[in-house]
Amino acid sequence: MLYISLNQTGKAESVERLFHFVGGIAGPWTVTGTKSVIGESLRAVERLAIVGGGTDLPQGGDWVLRGVVSNERYVTHQEREALRATQAGLGREHSVLAALIPIRKSPAWWALAQDERRIIVEEQSRHIHMGMKYLPAIARRLHHCRDLGEPFDFLTWFEYAAADASAFEELVGLLRLTEEWKYVDREVDVRLIRA
Amino acid sequence: MLYISLNQTGKAESVERLFHFVGGIAGPWTVTGTKSVIGESLRAVERLAIVGGGTDLPQGGDWVLRGVVSNERYVTHQEREALRATQAGLGREHSVLAALIPIRKSPAWWALAQDERRIIVEEQSRHIHMGMKYLPAIARRLHHCRDLGEPFDFLTWFEYAAADASAFEELVGLLRLTEEWKYVDREVDVRLIRA
Repeated sequence: MLYISLNQTGKAESVERLFHFVGGIAGPWTVTGTKSVIGESLRAVERLAIVGGGTDLPQGGDWVLRGVVSNERYVTHQEREALRATQAGLGREHSVLAALIPIRKSPAWWALAQDERRIIVEEQSRHIHMGMKYLPAIARRLHHCRDLGEPFDFLTWFEYAAADASAFEELVGLLRLTEEWKYVDREVDVRLIRA
Repeated sequence: MLYISLNQTGKAESVERLFHFVGGIAGPWTVTGTKSVIGESLRAVERLAIVGGGTDLPQGGDWVLRGVVSNERYVTHQEREALRATQAGLGREHSVLAALIPIRKSPAWWALAQDERRIIVEEQSRHIHMGMKYLPAIARRLHHCRDLGEPFDFLTWFEYAAADASAFEELVGLLRLTEEWKYVDREVDVRLIRA
């Protein structure tokens, strides 16, 4: 069987958007806690490495989760402008704490139409506006994985300073009380500190 | 390197939503034409097979395109109810003609926020309502592939009877004149007949 190579323009671009979260014994992040919030947990590991799409994975991984940074699914133009005006990027020197929160949403969620999901995410749960209150302290990158054949639908990676640890607890606590979270049927919470 | 298996619930479900379009010398569909509408074409092949996610691919393929049936991105609840009331499934006995139309949208499209893309798709281009006028004659299945590292963003598969061939030409002709299509930067049109 031989498949000729297709135009690779799309492929190169999407490889840049793909990230592997490798739990094991390697990587700059030391795992300080792994707990199940809803459903089955992940095996507790010592360290975490975040590896780009075109790169070899480190040895000794216990698990690997893949996700793609994709286009916005709910954020409006106006909301995005507000987010961009205040949000900070990953990798800030003082952001020594991090959280990896993989979630899966229920079949009932995915059966909803776009307008129904938007109403739950924002008009009822205020997910976008709630997150804005914690900017720029909490930096965030969302990875999509439902269509990649992964066990989770989303991997969210957060970075923040030690001084903002209680603000981060408040944010995740509030999100878990929302209408949107009633559709989360698996959630793991992995906490980390930069070695 | 060893990765333990994760919970496979999500994986099994997404494998069912994954399809391979294999262009080569095998499959129930005979290719009657392959043309570029915008940008680079695909190599012309004799036959096409559509293969599910968990299945071996046929021998002798020249190219393979993968896509996942995913959640709705623009359709509202009301529109979906209207679609469901009239649309027909694939595989109807009299649907002996088919088209595979892979498209890629531009970086400018993907940089738009959700509300901006919805306005272009439906309020300006009437994509959803235009398609409805051709139901149930034209059956359609949309596959997403932008986040899979594929050369296209979408693969749309259409099936229709010989008597509806001119209606199908009208539909694709109208879609290509829309505001939405200004964001299409690659499009190939493959026509087929069931052997």
